[in-house]
This record gives sequence, structure tokens and C-alpha cells, in this order.
Amino acid sequence: MTVAVYLPLEEKTRWWVDQLSELLPGRNVWPLDAVTDPEAVRYAVVWRPRTGDIARFPNLRAVVSIGAGIDHVLADEELPSGIPIIRTTGRDLTQRMREYVALHVLRHHRDMPRQLRAQAEKDWHAIVVPVAPSRTVGVMGLGNLGAAAAKTLAGLGFATRGWSRSGRDIPGVETFAGADGLDDFLAGCEILVNLLPLTGETHGILDESLFGRLAPGACIVNCARGPHVVDDDLLSALRSGQVKQATLDVFHQEPLPVDHPFWSHPAITVTPHVASQIDPGTGARLIAENIKIFDTTGTCEDLADAARGY
Amino acid sequence: MTVAVYLPLEEKTRWWVDQLSELLPGRNVWPLDAVTDPEAVRYAVVWRPRTGDIARFPNLRAVVSIGAGIDHVLADEELPSGIPIIRTTGRDLTQRMREYVALHVLRHHRDMPRQLRAQAEKDWHAIVVPVAPSRTVGVMGLGNLGAAAAKTLAGLGFATRGWSRSGRDIPGVETFAGADGLDDFLAGCEILVNLLPLTGETHGILDESLFGRLAPGACIVNCARGPHVVDDDLLSALRSGQVKQATLDVFHQEPLPVDHPFWSHPAITVTPHVASQIDPGTGARLIAENIKIFDTTGTCEDLADAARGY
Repeated sequence: MTVAVYLPLEEKTRWWVDQLSELLPGRNVWPLDAVTDPEAVRYAVVWRPRTGDIARFPNLRAVVSIGAGIDHVLADEELPSGIPIIRTTGRDLTQRMREYVALHVLRHHRDMPRQLRAQAEKDWHAIVVPVAPSRTVGVMGLGNLGAAAAKTLAGLGFATRGWSRSGRDIPGVETFAGADGLDDFLAGCEILVNLLPLTGETHGILDESLFGRLAPGACIVNCARGPHVVDDDLLSALRSGQVKQATLDVFHQEPLPVDHPFWSHPAITVTPHVASQIDPGTGARLIAENIKIFDTTGTCEDLADAARGY
Repeated sequence: MTVAVYLPLEEKTRWWVDQLSELLPGRNVWPLDAVTDPEAVRYAVVWRPRTGDIARFPNLRAVVSIGAGIDHVLADEELPSGIPIIRTTGRDLTQRMREYVALHVLRHHRDMPRQLRAQAEKDWHAIVVPVAPSRTVGVMGLGNLGAAAAKTLAGLGFATRGWSRSGRDIPGVETFAGADGLDDFLAGCEILVNLLPLTGETHGILDESLFGRLAPGACIVNCARGPHVVDDDLLSALRSGQVKQATLDVFHQEPLPVDHPFWSHPAITVTPHVASQIDPGTGARLIAENIKIFDTTGTCEDLADAARGY
């Protein structure tokens, strides 16, 4: 049995091949491009596979996404229909996302960018902001990561709201559901965190219309996927002041092209898709474990629903 | 009965006089320097009073500190001995401090300063840090503010320690007590938060010896008082790399003089004593309430222990 591994960066592919070889003794783990016997491949462990990468393997049992999202797998137009897709989740992924969301919501809440500009000017002038319980923060997407983020923000004292397609109860969080609940969720929301899965329905959801329904001068934290955001709409909302500042971890194209206006925009913080990386060590163990379980039982907890898109 | 008010900034004094006049109907509230009948003054509401300011009033019942600390009152060498000192605490003060500590510990933890430099260079290079449970954070001082900060950090997932003079149990936090416990508390500590009261014992406690006992490359967050830190020792610890970076909210002299090296040090974040300001609205209500209670009962919950220093 062969496991094929693909990530866009060759050095990362090599790293994952080495790790998985150790963790899956008795299996052949190969870089996808080095596979000579495609019929022997049972699992493809991938991040952003190229079109046709998966279809090469006629006897594939499952695709394993090196990440919590499966949109980068579904983007392959030649993906064999019905192939099981296994996500990678785990405690570290949730922990890192909680940290990122807490950090960037607090940065916007306490206006750290302005504070740092004041320091550069040696300006001893207090920026006084409301206390967190007077600040309304909204989390879109209440899956594992979104629910954990919302709980963390509520724990920090923020007036926290959550929105998801089908609704979910979270203690200390005011939740809203579906298209009908979106207006009420957005109204008065001062800091918006996006943790939605990327699907046909959520593609481009952070657009002019959505920004316009937030509190004036709202802040955006996008740590889900780049295509959730209509880039030009965000830039004009920043120009008009309807959006005050944004932290973006994900982009339509990654790495973010050097000539993209986000890099040097004074009101945008760019981070290179690190909000919640799969920790290589832990991630490799989780993936090896999922492959073993799926290979024995034909299913596993992290099996995604391809029809739903996450 | 007269209430005298003093803060170093005249406009702030006027603001507090107006607020307290409204909240204490039937009492005369005056700027301290405008008092013509010192014998009528029963309460002095002050922030950083000048030497002799308090001693002017022979019939004073209590001094009210516009802040959680009383060191700025005790610093007056002519302070009448035995005069009761009332601190100003309250939920907002604790909430703001929790936010500040969470924000700045997370900034150091996720190395935001380096991330921002990378953005300035359009550098798409992931900075991977350990997850919070693998990061040891220590809080010095476990009073109201310190205990709340430690609980918040533990809630965010950090391996959290606390140290105080006499020890205190806090769920989820490993606590250490007294001089005997300090070495063990400091050993391996990667981010140190100072929330100690300023007393004879704690003056200059953040010095070369203490920095040397932290984990190499540790980060410092000082949101207590400037004189806790030996400035030159911090600068040399930053030079040697024993301390990697620091966030300082308080200073020996405030406002921080424009020629002080902290302002433009690349590894120091300066904030203008805003970690946990008394919210003027809430603060005035708390102070008025404490004056009414003390005036009726001769004591109140926020009465400080001048002998202990906090």
C-alpha cells in the first residue's frame, strides 16, 4: 500500500514524507510526483493539489487534507466524485486559532495600530476605548474553530455573537442562524471574525453589502479563506471608513503576490496563513492515526461531507 | 463638608470636580488648589499629589486614590501618618487589565513585532511558534488584578504561573510564594507579567538578577509601576538578548520624557499608562460611592493597608 504526499513546496513535501514514513511503518510513503505505480496508491495526503493530481490514482480510498478545510481539494475539477475526504483537526489547530482570534480582536479593540503610531511619534496621549463588555464582536461560522473562537472571546469579556448556517447553542454567546438571521447578527457588530467554511454559498460573502450592515468603522479579521472576501469591496469600505481596519491571514492567491495592495495598506495587517497552522509534529501523528483508522474501519471522525463542502 | 480634588493635569482636575459635584449633592467639591477653608475638607481625591498637599487639611477623614495603587499617595513625605487611604478598584479596572495583559502576552507569544516587520518587507514567511500550552507565562503579584490576569492567561491555554508575597491558590495556575519561591517561579518563565504593588520590597525588583533567572529570550510586560524596573538593567538585558522584547505601560517619570531611550527602542512597546485606566464615568461613581460609605461607616471594602503599602 502506497501513500502519496503533495504540497506546493517541495521541501515541505519531503518533510511530510519523512514524518509519515516513520509513523506508518510497512506503508510506502512517496512524494506524489515520484509515484511510479499509481495503482498501488490508497491515500493521497495533500495541501492544494493540482488539477488531476487525485484522479491519477484509480484505487484511491481517501484524500487526506493537510488542514481543517477541504475547499482546496474540492477545487480540483477532476476530483473523482464520491471520493472520501478526511480533514485534519485536533486540539492544537483549535488552540492556535483561539490564540490568533483573541490576539487580533484585542489588537483592534484596543487600537494597537494607532498606539504604535503614537509611540513612533513619542506621543504620550491615552487612547481610551470602551471595555470589552461594551464591544460587540461577531464570529461567522460555528464549527469546531468558530465555536472555540466565540467561547474564547466571550471568556475575555466581549459581547459575543455567533452566526452559522444552521444555528448552534454556545453558552455566553448570542447565536443567529441562516440567511434570516444575518441582518440581526451584523447590525451593530464592531469586530467581525470570519471562520466560515468556503463553499458556493459563502464565496464572496464578505462584500460591500455585508460591510455596509456592520457598525460604522468596524474591524474585520479573516482567518478562514481568501475567497470569502471581495478584495475590491474591502478596499473601498476601508476608503469610505465603513471598515476601519482589517487583519487578513488568507488570500485569493497565496503567497499574496508582492504587488497586491493589501501588503502595504496602512489599515491592513497581513499574516501569511499562520492563524492556525497544522503543527507539523502533531499534524503528522493525527494524519497517520486517521489513515490507520480509516483503513481498518472505512470511516473516521474527521471524515468531511463533500456535498456540504466541509 | 468639602471634598478636595487634585490631579497633575488641570483639565482632568476640572473634569473630576464636575463629576463628583454631581454625584455628591450637598457636598462642596473643589479643586485642591482653590480650597479657601482647609479645615472644612474631609476627603482628598488625588492622583500623584505633591508633597504636603494632604497635610494641609487638619480634619481630613480619608485620602482617595484615583487608581488601584496607593504608592503615589505614600510617596508624599508629609503624609499624615495613620490617615486612611481608599483605593479605587471595580470591575472595569480588572476587565481592562485582563484585556491588556491578554493582548500583550499574545503579541509576544505570536511574535507580532516580527510579523509586522515581515509585512513591511512583503515577506511571506511563516513564523511558527509553540502552542500556548507549551509556553510558560508568569504573573508577579496576585492581588485583584494579578489574579484576574493569571486566570485569563490560563483560560487562553498558557502554562500559567503566579507569584506573590504570601501565596494564593488560583485554579489552573501554579503558584509560588515569597522570596523562597521566586527562583522556581522564574526558572523557565518565557513571558513575565508584572502586577505587583509598588512597595519598599518590590522597588527595582525587575533587575539584572531577575532577568537572568528567566528563560533566555524572555519577554516582559510591565503594567504595574515604573520603579519596579531598573531601566538600565532592562536595556542591557535587551542588548544581550536575555530579554527579547518588552511592553511597558508605566515608567519612572510619566509622561515618559521624549529623550528616554525606551520611546524608540525597536524591542520595546511603550503605552502611555493605559493598561487599566479608571474609566472616568465608572470611576467617579465608584469614588462617590466609597466616600458615602466611608463617611457613614468609617470603613469600606477598598480601604488600603498603608503599613503593607497596598
